[in-house]
Amino acid sequence: MERRKFLSLLSLVLITFIVFIFIFDNLPSSTNFHSVNKAAVELELAQPPPRKLTRHVHVSDMASHPLDPLTVQEVNRVRSIVTTHALFKTAKKYALHSVVLEEPQKPSVLRWKEGDPLLPRKASVIARVDGGTHVMSVDLGSGRVEMVDVGEVSGYPTMTIEDMNTATFTPLESKEFNRTVVDRGVDLEDLACLPISTGWYGKKEEKRRLIKVQCYSMEDTTNFYMRPIEGLTVIVDMDTNQVVEISDNGKDIPIPKAANTEYRFAAQKNNIHHKIKPINPISIEQPKGPSFTVENGHMIKWANWEFHLKPDPRAGVIISRAMFRDPDTEELRNVMYKGMASELFVPYMDPSDAWYFKTYMDAGEYGFGLTAMPLDPLNDCPRNAYYMDGVFAAGDGRPYVRSNMVCVFESYTGDIGWRHSESPITGMEIREARPKVTLVVRMAASVANYDYIVDWEFQTDGVVKIKVGLSGILMVKATPYTNTNQVPNHDDLYGTLLSENVIGVIHDHFITFYLDMDVDGSDNSFVKVNLKRQQTSPGESPRTSYLKATRSTAKTEKDAQIKLKLYDPSEFHVINPNKKTRVGNPVGYKVVPAGTAASLLDLEDPPQKRGAFTNNQIWVTPYNRSEEWAGGLFVYQSHGEDTLATWSERDREIENKDIVLWYTLGFHHIPCQEDFPIMPTVSSSFSLKPVNFFERNPILGMPPNFEKDLPVCQAASSAS
Amino acid sequence: MERRKFLSLLSLVLITFIVFIFIFDNLPSSTNFHSVNKAAVELELAQPPPRKLTRHVHVSDMASHPLDPLTVQEVNRVRSIVTTHALFKTAKKYALHSVVLEEPQKPSVLRWKEGDPLLPRKASVIARVDGGTHVMSVDLGSGRVEMVDVGEVSGYPTMTIEDMNTATFTPLESKEFNRTVVDRGVDLEDLACLPISTGWYGKKEEKRRLIKVQCYSMEDTTNFYMRPIEGLTVIVDMDTNQVVEISDNGKDIPIPKAANTEYRFAAQKNNIHHKIKPINPISIEQPKGPSFTVENGHMIKWANWEFHLKPDPRAGVIISRAMFRDPDTEELRNVMYKGMASELFVPYMDPSDAWYFKTYMDAGEYGFGLTAMPLDPLNDCPRNAYYMDGVFAAGDGRPYVRSNMVCVFESYTGDIGWRHSESPITGMEIREARPKVTLVVRMAASVANYDYIVDWEFQTDGVVKIKVGLSGILMVKATPYTNTNQVPNHDDLYGTLLSENVIGVIHDHFITFYLDMDVDGSDNSFVKVNLKRQQTSPGESPRTSYLKATRSTAKTEKDAQIKLKLYDPSEFHVINPNKKTRVGNPVGYKVVPAGTAASLLDLEDPPQKRGAFTNNQIWVTPYNRSEEWAGGLFVYQSHGEDTLATWSERDREIENKDIVLWYTLGFHHIPCQEDFPIMPTVSSSFSLKPVNFFERNPILGMPPNFEKDLPVCQAASSAS
Repeated sequence: MERRKFLSLLSLVLITFIVFIFIFDNLPSSTNFHSVNKAAVELELAQPPPRKLTRHVHVSDMASHPLDPLTVQEVNRVRSIVTTHALFKTAKKYALHSVVLEEPQKPSVLRWKEGDPLLPRKASVIARVDGGTHVMSVDLGSGRVEMVDVGEVSGYPTMTIEDMNTATFTPLESKEFNRTVVDRGVDLEDLACLPISTGWYGKKEEKRRLIKVQCYSMEDTTNFYMRPIEGLTVIVDMDTNQVVEISDNGKDIPIPKAANTEYRFAAQKNNIHHKIKPINPISIEQPKGPSFTVENGHMIKWANWEFHLKPDPRAGVIISRAMFRDPDTEELRNVMYKGMASELFVPYMDPSDAWYFKTYMDAGEYGFGLTAMPLDPLNDCPRNAYYMDGVFAAGDGRPYVRSNMVCVFESYTGDIGWRHSESPITGMEIREARPKVTLVVRMAASVANYDYIVDWEFQTDGVVKIKVGLSGILMVKATPYTNTNQVPNHDDLYGTLLSENVIGVIHDHFITFYLDMDVDGSDNSFVKVNLKRQQTSPGESPRTSYLKATRSTAKTEKDAQIKLKLYDPSEFHVINPNKKTRVGNPVGYKVVPAGTAASLLDLEDPPQKRGAFTNNQIWVTPYNRSEEWAGGLFVYQSHGEDTLATWSERDREIENKDIVLWYTLGFHHIPCQEDFPIMPTVSSSFSLKPVNFFERNPILGMPPNFEKDLPVCQAASSAS
Repeated sequence: MERRKFLSLLSLVLITFIVFIFIFDNLPSSTNFHSVNKAAVELELAQPPPRKLTRHVHVSDMASHPLDPLTVQEVNRVRSIVTTHALFKTAKKYALHSVVLEEPQKPSVLRWKEGDPLLPRKASVIARVDGGTHVMSVDLGSGRVEMVDVGEVSGYPTMTIEDMNTATFTPLESKEFNRTVVDRGVDLEDLACLPISTGWYGKKEEKRRLIKVQCYSMEDTTNFYMRPIEGLTVIVDMDTNQVVEISDNGKDIPIPKAANTEYRFAAQKNNIHHKIKPINPISIEQPKGPSFTVENGHMIKWANWEFHLKPDPRAGVIISRAMFRDPDTEELRNVMYKGMASELFVPYMDPSDAWYFKTYMDAGEYGFGLTAMPLDPLNDCPRNAYYMDGVFAAGDGRPYVRSNMVCVFESYTGDIGWRHSESPITGMEIREARPKVTLVVRMAASVANYDYIVDWEFQTDGVVKIKVGLSGILMVKATPYTNTNQVPNHDDLYGTLLSENVIGVIHDHFITFYLDMDVDGSDNSFVKVNLKRQQTSPGESPRTSYLKATRSTAKTEKDAQIKLKLYDPSEFHVINPNKKTRVGNPVGYKVVPAGTAASLLDLEDPPQKRGAFTNNQIWVTPYNRSEEWAGGLFVYQSHGEDTLATWSERDREIENKDIVLWYTLGFHHIPCQEDFPIMPTVSSSFSLKPVNFFERNPILGMPPNFEKDLPVCQAASSAS
């Protein structure tokens, strides 16, 4: 009883505290999680000393490129403009859910050159004011606020960090909840709760901004994710901060043990192996330093590539104005105007009460950038990495800095750029090989349990490889079973028994990328190059069949709704129909899928309607400033009426127009014991590859490695 | 006239020479190519000084493991046994097409332990003697030769290097050929010819060991592949060294120009770019040296992995006895008994006279190992790589050494083994990440123009990733067209116009891997874990659908003939049904496909019958010593009656048995201008991944990188 009061008081104090701590600090360093508990404190002592992390305050940063994100000063300016606006002055309650640069119109950006005066700076603000959602265009110069009409849409904006935090406290206000927790054998001090987006399934999720809170025990482990209080779900109204409903259908399900769940290095003392030789130190070394430059904080220049890079609270990172200097003409050529992770869709495959709604859309619901935490130097990125900070706005509009949110580094794996040896057939003494060096832009979003590592890898041959790695911790389900031999029918588990009482539930991950390709200019076409078997005519050839490539240009959007087929293969080119190579091929880039997975849910299932942007692997739409987020601008609790699928259904013309390519990378994840208690990274990727974009191999002239140029290294301990 | 006589004489001298040069030398250093021409000599002068290459003579090497390849002494011993055998003593003509270790029976190898006496050494020899093919088992101890009955099969053994070389000279014996070449404007001194396997299309290719020779001009370039004398095909009998037929249907097709075809660094003087900043030196550095050891020349031990590695003339490299030390129990556990590239199938998609037969099976026709040339240190493999030589036998049975044929190195790309940060939702100060370090075994086969880079990448988390990179030079077709606007119908090119008069012909690459998995023992089963949409019952859930995984064990081979399907996805497990984890899951490994391509040729097309092992992406067969080569033991001119497809058709039982998994990695290649004059590497891969093989994440205990352990490096020029 006393404890509960204490906790309520503590919650209030902390909530008040949270409102103030977002200034000039990155969020995770604040103790804004409600469990100030003994386990964490004790374990804290065992932590290794924190590694060096350079912190920049960014108060004096100035924008220098039209696409530069809002600076600290600009966020402050937005806040002072907005909060003095009539709408806010009379408001009882408001929160800013998004404060980002309103990018200038594309033609203005394309016309802008380095040295030109900066284009007028505007901010795009999404706010909740007294229960209503407002989109505003804020002119930073004049201070003018323009209300943007986004029409009647069903969803809500991305949650604020404060929304998520508050939601995790709210259940504690309920005596019923507290009693239930104690009845399940969990000390309230050990409680850790997560805010889980509700999705939309009909009336129950309409007209109120709801979140479902589920809780865990963090007794004896920091990896509370492995200790769910199964079946206990609290529905919280995020606007009123009230408990709407508590359901508990897991009373008989034990809470899995803490044993073997800890993953931190400091807690691995017992994992010392005598028969396994440790790996000697290994490092990518660049004695003359990295070869890329970062100009004015955001322009990255490396080898033939130039592009603008910025952190974004929703997309994570945004690559803009990617251009490649043609080695033959030395001309800087446009490749992509803008590329980013647009939306994610992560449906879990368990239809039961505490699980059916877990169909996350991480970018639009949680913010793929808001959850991208500081990268760990030497482990998340190699030595010589450059770290870029994110400047975001808290719910009250104050700026805060997410340190080291993005890293940029050169990678050399030992791979080969190109090679040829003359074979014993000719016996000529030729042995030519070139090392492959790439530039990687990386961020890692920790959307609660899961970690998504997103790499944009730029190659000297013009290829851009987009790789997504999945790591972090599974979302697991508790069960009374401790061995599969107790399960009457294997298939009813909805997943794999990973440890005693722990099921890893089957789920999918889809990440849909927005790729505004501008191949040598904005007007492009989408061409399918289909390979089909041709039968030869009798007497034509000793062969009866061969493959023939047929090119067809997509006229409208529906021509470009692509499901990949192994037995009906195509290449997918974005070409510039107005520019040809010397021998007459249209210049282009192709999207090259690698391993992927398709969504198999019922098209009419509510989550699939909301995630309908995964109905195809490839889509092409005409460029439209308002169509950037594949699940819609407001995906939280949306009904799915404003997705890429609905836009594409309009079947607009896309030939020889400014077009946007969308690609969805998918994973089916049937968990296995190796994923317990933390998952080794699983990756997949796709590439954008020049196809007749260059007259010839663009890395023909690159030099090989010579011994004399490589570094001379010593072990650190033996170095002076 | 005089010139032709000179060339004939030169040929004779060279042929005689070739017979003697294979001793203790690797083939490419010999000048056994017939064009001792001015261009090559002039260009020679411009070459950079050769890089350091350690050469080992291997005369005193001794086998120490039952799977160690034949040593120099052993090859010599085989030769002396065989050539004094009755069959050879009376022979007019013979050649040894394959001299390799006859691996001891699997149970004997499995029983053998380090320190045990070596198992009896035997050689498997394939010889052509007076027009007949013989397979012999040669006991190196007793000197006994046993003739092996392989039944009535249609094909011939892998060509010898001498076969290939002789074939390229033979056309010069024909006045008609020489006249044609001169008529096409090519100086005989500039002629470069290639031996192209004929395939099998019916009677014409039966009862004679034939090869088709096509020629190129190497005037002003070493990259003669870009200068075909189009349409000129000479059929040569490889047993009699006679011209059988000359066809020329390319009289009006010009030979493409040499301009821009050269790729060697020494010839790139004009490729200096002022606006493109060169890449600073970058290197994978290991101040304390690599972490792997190579014991007795062939046992590789690294981190948790141990395996036996050997070069092979046909497969390239063979990985045997791959075992992983379980970090929880420290027990060494079996994963794979043997893994190798078994066969390739590379059909070109042009049914016309000079092209239809190009449907290479590179391992069985040319020898994937015979064509694997010395790797270039620092460019083919990074610093700290260990290089392994191949010891092979020439056609006369003498041993020769292919230096630096395989490399082994540790790779660190900056990738992440696993990670987790606590998100702003919880605010806990956790940031854990582990760098990903892998061990790579690499070889690169140069099958004439094409280069195949084959990597076996071992990961600390138990994953083995098999990656194939394609580089080298395209096989191109000459054409009168210099621009696509001259082509009446685009589709008749059978490929892409890459440069003036040069077409890159569409083709496929399939590489079929033999993977004798022994997951914790030899008796394994193949399990499909199929994901299917389930509709929920009315009222069961607000969701209407979810995915359910259903396991089914393949009883017989036909159950395991798998075509991959994006919309009917499965996981493919090789499990040990006799061993379960603590919570009752069968221990297993799964094959994880990534990007791939399927063969689409008519199943009854002769090349597809021979390459029928590509009819599925996955097959499983019961272990059978004689079923190792997916296209059959003798694929050269085979009719396709002895392939993996025919074996699998027997539909033998495969449940809880010693089974072999076969995986085919495929590429469709529609060439593009970037592939001219040499191709940037294109890669694809698949993985073998533990699935409930471990009780938990096997890299949980691995330490992060610490600054203090990393090397201290200086630029070479500034180092003392």
